[in-house]
Amino acid sequence: MDVREVADAADPRLADYTRLRDVELRKSLETERGLFIAEGEKVIRRALAAGYPARSVLLTRKWLPALADVLGGVTVYLVGDEVMREVAGFQVHRGALASMERLPLPPVGKLLAGASSVVVLEDIVDHSNIGAIMRCAAALGVGGVVLSPRCADPLYRRAVKVSMGTVFSVPYARMDDWHGGLAELRAAGFRLLALTPAHHAAPIEEALERARDGKVALMLGSEGDGLSSRWLSQADEPVRIPMSGEVDSLNVAAAASIACYLLTRRA
Amino acid sequence: MDVREVADAADPRLADYTRLRDVELRKSLETERGLFIAEGEKVIRRALAAGYPARSVLLTRKWLPALADVLGGVTVYLVGDEVMREVAGFQVHRGALASMERLPLPPVGKLLAGASSVVVLEDIVDHSNIGAIMRCAAALGVGGVVLSPRCADPLYRRAVKVSMGTVFSVPYARMDDWHGGLAELRAAGFRLLALTPAHHAAPIEEALERARDGKVALMLGSEGDGLSSRWLSQADEPVRIPMSGEVDSLNVAAAASIACYLLTRRA
Repeated sequence: MDVREVADAADPRLADYTRLRDVELRKSLETERGLFIAEGEKVIRRALAAGYPARSVLLTRKWLPALADVLGGVTVYLVGDEVMREVAGFQVHRGALASMERLPLPPVGKLLAGASSVVVLEDIVDHSNIGAIMRCAAALGVGGVVLSPRCADPLYRRAVKVSMGTVFSVPYARMDDWHGGLAELRAAGFRLLALTPAHHAAPIEEALERARDGKVALMLGSEGDGLSSRWLSQADEPVRIPMSGEVDSLNVAAAASIACYLLTRRA
Repeated sequence: MDVREVADAADPRLADYTRLRDVELRKSLETERGLFIAEGEKVIRRALAAGYPARSVLLTRKWLPALADVLGGVTVYLVGDEVMREVAGFQVHRGALASMERLPLPPVGKLLAGASSVVVLEDIVDHSNIGAIMRCAAALGVGGVVLSPRCADPLYRRAVKVSMGTVFSVPYARMDDWHGGLAELRAAGFRLLALTPAHHAAPIEEALERARDGKVALMLGSEGDGLSSRWLSQADEPVRIPMSGEVDSLNVAAAASIACYLLTRRA
């Protein structure tokens, strides 16, 4: 552990941590530098345990003892509360941040090769929803998550935080091609079930029962519009969670919880 | 519809809408005046349709046509964006707020009399979680929700918003007495299933199967600590959602989604 005190929020060594709530800035900065931010002791521990290398860690003094045991070989910048707030752009309650190196994502084909059930997300752009879905997938043991090209980044700080760092334990991959992306799943032997609130769709448990001996890819769309008509038309079967009918559909995170539960208890 | 233009954020007629993000202020103000705030066109429509009387409505001008058809007999205060922001204390994106009169909650006994399955929440203090759970309960057709005395208010603006106004369609009641509250459920013939991540608990589907001919009350605790040891010890049976084991439990809203789904498909 290499501990350095930094007194100036403008110090270039802290640039990885700049303005953490500025979504546009962060997207470009994290892409260019190939990093993501882990926030809080538990999440930082999980990121390290999952094998992501730390570029550096930024701590207020009181957090050093809590993390010291896992920071061997890591450069630690120690700052005061005020510098932390100035750099990050808000009051970081759990005064521990780590800048982690991203690892290459597996190709979709490799992810599919090791899984019998996957969740496929189309254009879920909300980081909290992505984090919540990844947490469910991790807790329930889904084999993997496939993201459409426009899905939000599961390693964005907010998503990682909502997932409680469980995002590190779910294998996931991102399609290059939205238009033809589902063909690869079908070629890999997956039956494509498209979750929709449409009344004509089959109850999800019935469809899963019919597919019980095969591989299943469960497709979920964005909260506002649901799955695109292209993806719906390419699915093998539309499926629905039966509802009481008087109210709006479940939100996507709730629907994903139920779907992941039903998907994984088949095993 | 009685439309009045108001130009001054300090006008006492707007006092119902003061500082909507100040949780402590709002709690006391809403309790004293017996009101709650509905935000956005859809939620206001649902509150009116559910039979809550409107004390008044606060709109920026462009929202008047969208809501005019349901505002017969209602006092409408029209304000500019700036006055809206000053009163509410933030930029109200859906520039429509309604101050609604609360209605008396049913006694727990009355709620139980009409239900065969209920969800019982112990000390869920987060408004987003309450809203998310109410939305699931509404979508899936749970017979009712019973709140422990310390649970957050489902009619708090944030909870109503997260629930998309579905909170108005779920019957709910609040216990007076945490200590002895479960006795009333048992006396009403409900089997008490306590959701917990503990490994010794029975898988929830097995427990529901055993209880299939009877009434079931499914108990959920707060996200941090889960159910209290008192409530756990008073339950008929601890139950769990089987998980893959490597990661933290599901958050309470995700667990509630799965539990409500399994509870209601028994019928």
